[in-house]
Amino acid sequence: MTKQIINIQEKFSRFSEQWSPKIIAQMNDYHFKLARVEGDFTWHGHKDTDEVFLIIEGELRIDFRDGNVTLHEGELFVVPKGVEHKPFAEKECKILLVEPAGTVNTGDVGGDQTAKDNIWI
Amino acid sequence: MTKQIINIQEKFSRFSEQWSPKIIAQMNDYHFKLARVEGDFTWHGHKDTDEVFLIIEGELRIDFRDGNVTLHEGELFVVPKGVEHKPFAEKECKILLVEPAGTVNTGDVGGDQTAKDNIWI
Repeated sequence: MTKQIINIQEKFSRFSEQWSPKIIAQMNDYHFKLARVEGDFTWHGHKDTDEVFLIIEGELRIDFRDGNVTLHEGELFVVPKGVEHKPFAEKECKILLVEPAGTVNTGDVGGDQTAKDNIWI
Repeated sequence: MTKQIINIQEKFSRFSEQWSPKIIAQMNDYHFKLARVEGDFTWHGHKDTDEVFLIIEGELRIDFRDGNVTLHEGELFVVPKGVEHKPFAEKECKILLVEPAGTVNTGDVGGDQTAKDNIWI
């Protein structure tokens, strides 16, 4: 059996692009992805799936139509299926995302911030 | 919409039991669980699912029939479906587990170390 230890900070050192999640692990049909984010993302939702955010470094605000949350290092948040949200980070923030393989970062909205969703690092 | 920020260290402060994973979040039909582990666990496998370990604090060795890995803080490992493994920690180690809701910690083996798998904190 191949035994690959995945070091999160080492994986972050391999890319600098923002808003472009990179896959680091697969569990069944789910992907674990790292992303660097800064500034405003687009409003979007994922109609078929919940989405987990875990903050590795920095601070992330997620706006919802009815309020917002501000997440810090070591905090986890589940955005429920179908709920529109808009991430925002004043300074660069490093996050771990967990979601089904094939989930598109901009959900059903598309646009310039849509990332390729199949890049492993 | 309810907006619950889940702070991992704060959740750890709510329990001291070892080898007894506590659920902190649900994403679709998957659970995110925290566990404190120390000493030897039983050999077991999960025939229907992969299992993700993320080390929050400390050091965890996972023995396999054909070798082992030693994981440190910030490192993630996917134990593939069906692969027998035996976690071990010399000192208490704090881990985050991700696996399908209903996954039993001792897999198909059972025994004294089997935990209730439905405790939320």
